[in-house]
Amino acid sequence: MSVNSFGRLFRFTTWGESHGPAIGAVVDGCPPGLAIDESVIQPFLDARRPGQSKYTTQRQEPDQVRILSGVFEGQDGIRRTTGTPISLMIENVDQRSKDYSDVARAYRPGHADYAYDAKYGFRDYRGGGRSSARETASRVAAGAVARLVIPEVKIRAYVSEIGGDMIDPGNFDEAEIGNNPFFCPDVAAAARWEQIVDDARKAGSSVGAVIECYASGVPAGWGAPLYGKLDADLAAAMMGINAVKGIEIGDGFAAARLTGETNADPMRPSKETGPDGAPEFMANHAGGIAGGISTGQPVTCRVAFKPTSSILTPQPTVTREGQATELFTKGRHDPCVGIRGVPVVEAMMALVLADHKLLHRGQCG
Amino acid sequence: MSVNSFGRLFRFTTWGESHGPAIGAVVDGCPPGLAIDESVIQPFLDARRPGQSKYTTQRQEPDQVRILSGVFEGQDGIRRTTGTPISLMIENVDQRSKDYSDVARAYRPGHADYAYDAKYGFRDYRGGGRSSARETASRVAAGAVARLVIPEVKIRAYVSEIGGDMIDPGNFDEAEIGNNPFFCPDVAAAARWEQIVDDARKAGSSVGAVIECYASGVPAGWGAPLYGKLDADLAAAMMGINAVKGIEIGDGFAAARLTGETNADPMRPSKETGPDGAPEFMANHAGGIAGGISTGQPVTCRVAFKPTSSILTPQPTVTREGQATELFTKGRHDPCVGIRGVPVVEAMMALVLADHKLLHRGQCG
Amino acid sequence: MSVNSFGRLFRFTTWGESHGPAIGAVVDGCPPGLAIDESVIQPFLDARRPGQSKYTTQRQEPDQVRILSGVFEGQDGIRRTTGTPISLMIENVDQRSKDYSDVARAYRPGHADYAYDAKYGFRDYRGGGRSSARETASRVAAGAVARLVIPEVKIRAYVSEIGGDMIDPGNFDEAEIGNNPFFCPDVAAAARWEQIVDDARKAGSSVGAVIECYASGVPAGWGAPLYGKLDADLAAAMMGINAVKGIEIGDGFAAARLTGETNADPMRPSKETGPDGAPEFMANHAGGIAGGISTGQPVTCRVAFKPTSSILTPQPTVTREGQATELFTKGRHDPCVGIRGVPVVEAMMALVLADHKLLHRGQCG
Amino acid sequence: MSVNSFGRLFRFTTWGESHGPAIGAVVDGCPPGLAIDESVIQPFLDARRPGQSKYTTQRQEPDQVRILSGVFEGQDGIRRTTGTPISLMIENVDQRSKDYSDVARAYRPGHADYAYDAKYGFRDYRGGGRSSARETASRVAAGAVARLVIPEVKIRAYVSEIGGDMIDPGNFDEAEIGNNPFFCPDVAAAARWEQIVDDARKAGSSVGAVIECYASGVPAGWGAPLYGKLDADLAAAMMGINAVKGIEIGDGFAAARLTGETNADPMRPSKETGPDGAPEFMANHAGGIAGGISTGQPVTCRVAFKPTSSILTPQPTVTREGQATELFTKGRHDPCVGIRGVPVVEAMMALVLADHKLLHRGQCG
Repeated sequence: MSVNSFGRLFRFTTWGESHGPAIGAVVDGCPPGLAIDESVIQPFLDARRPGQSKYTTQRQEPDQVRILSGVFEGQDGIRRTTGTPISLMIENVDQRSKDYSDVARAYRPGHADYAYDAKYGFRDYRGGGRSSARETASRVAAGAVARLVIPEVKIRAYVSEIGGDMIDPGNFDEAEIGNNPFFCPDVAAAARWEQIVDDARKAGSSVGAVIECYASGVPAGWGAPLYGKLDADLAAAMMGINAVKGIEIGDGFAAARLTGETNADPMRPSKETGPDGAPEFMANHAGGIAGGISTGQPVTCRVAFKPTSSILTPQPTVTREGQATELFTKGRHDPCVGIRGVPVVEAMMALVLADHKLLHRGQCG
Repeated sequence: MSVNSFGRLFRFTTWGESHGPAIGAVVDGCPPGLAIDESVIQPFLDARRPGQSKYTTQRQEPDQVRILSGVFEGQDGIRRTTGTPISLMIENVDQRSKDYSDVARAYRPGHADYAYDAKYGFRDYRGGGRSSARETASRVAAGAVARLVIPEVKIRAYVSEIGGDMIDPGNFDEAEIGNNPFFCPDVAAAARWEQIVDDARKAGSSVGAVIECYASGVPAGWGAPLYGKLDADLAAAMMGINAVKGIEIGDGFAAARLTGETNADPMRPSKETGPDGAPEFMANHAGGIAGGISTGQPVTCRVAFKPTSSILTPQPTVTREGQATELFTKGRHDPCVGIRGVPVVEAMMALVLADHKLLHRGQCG
Repeated sequence: MSVNSFGRLFRFTTWGESHGPAIGAVVDGCPPGLAIDESVIQPFLDARRPGQSKYTTQRQEPDQVRILSGVFEGQDGIRRTTGTPISLMIENVDQRSKDYSDVARAYRPGHADYAYDAKYGFRDYRGGGRSSARETASRVAAGAVARLVIPEVKIRAYVSEIGGDMIDPGNFDEAEIGNNPFFCPDVAAAARWEQIVDDARKAGSSVGAVIECYASGVPAGWGAPLYGKLDADLAAAMMGINAVKGIEIGDGFAAARLTGETNADPMRPSKETGPDGAPEFMANHAGGIAGGISTGQPVTCRVAFKPTSSILTPQPTVTREGQATELFTKGRHDPCVGIRGVPVVEAMMALVLADHKLLHRGQCG
Repeated sequence: MSVNSFGRLFRFTTWGESHGPAIGAVVDGCPPGLAIDESVIQPFLDARRPGQSKYTTQRQEPDQVRILSGVFEGQDGIRRTTGTPISLMIENVDQRSKDYSDVARAYRPGHADYAYDAKYGFRDYRGGGRSSARETASRVAAGAVARLVIPEVKIRAYVSEIGGDMIDPGNFDEAEIGNNPFFCPDVAAAARWEQIVDDARKAGSSVGAVIECYASGVPAGWGAPLYGKLDADLAAAMMGINAVKGIEIGDGFAAARLTGETNADPMRPSKETGPDGAPEFMANHAGGIAGGISTGQPVTCRVAFKPTSSILTPQPTVTREGQATELFTKGRHDPCVGIRGVPVVEAMMALVLADHKLLHRGQCG
């Protein structure tokens, strides 16, 4: 019942604080025999890495991952998973020395500072300690391992909305996602967002974002009803990401405004697989999940990120002693924390799916 | 890792199918010494019970709960929890005998029929079997026990939107929630919804709904970062309810359109508790949770229910053998399944909070 | 983290007290499609059932099991598991009405009475409540389901020692186990035990016993190092049975007196399977498990049962108020509780192996 | 359901192989505010450290532990736990470069080599990889943290038997345990064991051992019936230690030869605490546990260690290809692996008790 762990059969545990010597993850339950080394994981960490554009925090972290266990070089010279725990470590490098007396003394509004103190009575206040989004690097590393478990699945996330400005679905071009600093599939929107995010950055303000993610190639049958439903696990996975406040599967809240007819997911025999194969859904309002189990259609979700709470405008708050004071957030921050959420959302999707693949194989394989 | 269980320290396991002899829940981890008998649980089941108005399914189930274990009558004549598992059973009474050859042969679109078959290869197709919303009666019963664990917390859910028609926040009157068949806090909206739901019913159609829920009295400090966050657990709890497609905490998706300033949750010393007490949040955009931990403010969420998939309009689908066919849903169904979700949402809120109270006490008590 | 549950992928949860209306188990994670009905489970319950000879308690319980969920009759008329939770219920019939004021007031020495009160502050004292060995009927029922999951495995337990009198290995005849009320494979020992147990019964005393159990047909590779080792799980499973005080795998404590040479488990190519098959172990000191993983040899263990604590000789004890008093156990009891442990030991072996089969398939399948 | 994790509320996960760069543990669920730094953990690792006498393996490992997370220096200059995961890392230093072609090609009898290959199909064969007793250093480090959680408990383990030669209970002197390389409380036995172990070492052989452990100061009420019983958890904890083949609680197997009278645990009012306090048990056959719950008496257990499987006498075995061959174990090994088990047994006792303290507080606190 380790609360710093996620997953059942494919399970990872993370550790580390923003300004400690390192962060890391232990991935347990990874099947044996999968080819892996650091170069398989690093690209995903690089995609999440801060300091790569002016639109993200200027903290400079190389985020070099090391594999400390669970991998062994076979006699063919290929390193492979052995089925034992894979320990991943990322050293913290740019824990800038600074004066923390402000945040030690008073609670940053919108942050977890007060809640952690209320819970534990004692906290590492440097850079948010354990509650910092820095921890998500561990998830991204673990997610890279998870992807090896589900080679049949393709996962892609992108930002669909920043500061209330949405992409035009007609402009959707998956190839563009990697071509701009916003993971935006719409060239025109990406251009607009430069202005929006830069304005927020210059003003010491911040903006929210929405990320969409889909996974194609998921076979029908993954998901463990009733309290390990695929959609429920995804909801927990996404809602647990820093700054996330909402999660939708398929049509989400929009489905609440449809009728039974307009929300219907009629099926027909799959053209590709013939009469014996999985049916094709003529729409996919359900987002690829029914009764908590995958249907063979793409699994889709939308995730809402609030604007970064760290802003330059001073806010009323209280001290540890309960006195009124004001605080504003000095230091390096993301003007739109949602942007760097894209690799994290993808990682969580991969982690949930890898777990459910193994679970399904265990019970029904 | 029982997937039909939910919770960690306060944990329940449900069993049963729509048309089997009974359904039930085993509640494990309930603290000892709490006064309980069937009459404590029954009112919550009654609130969820079908067949009470023309706006819900006409299946007639008395939903009488029996406590089979875990409770003992003390020498003062009061029945109390003993700390051992509480077995709750509800007999199915109105499993109307009918011809199931249609649903045995083909998959109802929008239902879990195909997904269950893809997963298990064999399913109880009568009334949806295990995937039927009938299972939520077990959750409601378990939730009634959970409420005993958190007497300091007040939980209330209500429908805020049906078929796209929203309540007017200015008309919000909590006392009205129990006065209409829609759990609607706005008298005017309730009147409009009579028409909307009745039209859907008569047309053999269905409409979606949004439920809002809040829990007040939750002290600061509940929630178990990082993978047992209070909001992540709530997200899983709510997304796991039949027909739910979206969940928001606090401002949810709306927060993605705010700026750091407009989404700020500034704090001030609590007027009530004085300088040593918990601070007061001047807004509660966060929905009472920061960093996955409660802040002492009301915990709030919104839950989207899709329209019932069972409609009278025939839909294209496939048979078990993969042949094209058409199917429409005969039998008794809810024109707006979201309505009866209110007691279920409340139950899941109670179950999550009870679990986190015990977890917090275990680690930090 | 339900403490009234056991297992990971194949998991059961038990509920019920000795003198409540019923006891039961919910079996979760059973693979779908296995032919099952009550008649598959009942023989194992019958083997454990009390009141069948003068050597066991005279409580008369028919122990009729009912399957309430998780099983469905296919179109071929065969009832099969559906992959959903299997709820098993056994009604208590012979909860003899008696005066419990003695045990309500003071703690029976050697029983869990004091410990339960120290833990929970409130207990069902009738017949030991939850701590009664009656609960093991639920395990036996769940174990019968587990056996369906591992048809390749043959499990057999027997009593090898009662009151210090051991069987002669030279007399071992498996066919005899079912021919006497002691589950004894040695005809001569069974005859001696009649006297030993009957003497204890008449004297209002009790004797201890040792049970041995083996499982053949377990393939190499089951077991989940490092904290789900097959031997560790068996140790927990057996030590958790009422009255058990010791557990050995393979040579057990005797191995501590061997040298590396005399304890060696040399291997040779299996004659049966040829050079590509699993090796044959020339001895099996290890009891079929190495590094927590099965080796393909029979899995063997020995389990020590203490003498029943309920005896007619009055013992000093204390009241709930902490005053000195004396107590002896009136009512119906087993003069050798170990005897009826045989079906329970077999059930726990089956439950552990079924779980590990699914776990192995999940991670390595 | 991470199988490389142990515990429920106080939970640790270990990682690492014998010849990898490092090993470690992540301790999750440790309560906040406990004073800790490396110097608190190191002495326990030093007690287990190899190469300290000629009676243990000559592998030279400094076993210096580093705390990488979960600990923060308060404003009083004291480092304390924060309630977040504590990552502990121990670098491997003396992974002697050698030729592993023998063990890569064939299975060492008595070791986990064959079983790992049967399970995973691919293994790190260097020094036993994950199955090496080197992993127990991680448990000892985690156990040192666990001790901080249970300051009221005193835990002591010692070797009571080596190669069949037992201590004389009349010579028991706890103060002697730390004065000899065998953790032996009997000066005379320790002298005899020098000869026994040295003979085995010189002969390239090995001998078994029995460790006894007790924990005093455990209050009544810890333990979580029915499937988290304190004795069942201890059984799993001890049986999971490398080379362990048996575990007894209290009188263990000896209890199977007692009668109800001779095994009785009568109680009287405690002289120390007066009539309102916990009773005193006049014997403690039960080993401080009844019904899976602590009784307030010392918790006692005995653990059997087989002789080290690595011996110089060649043994028949098979190659990976299933061909007959012979193998003997070159390299550095313990002639009596049980000796170094003492700090490991203590650590597991501490880990189980810390977990149950938190569990009890969570449910009944």
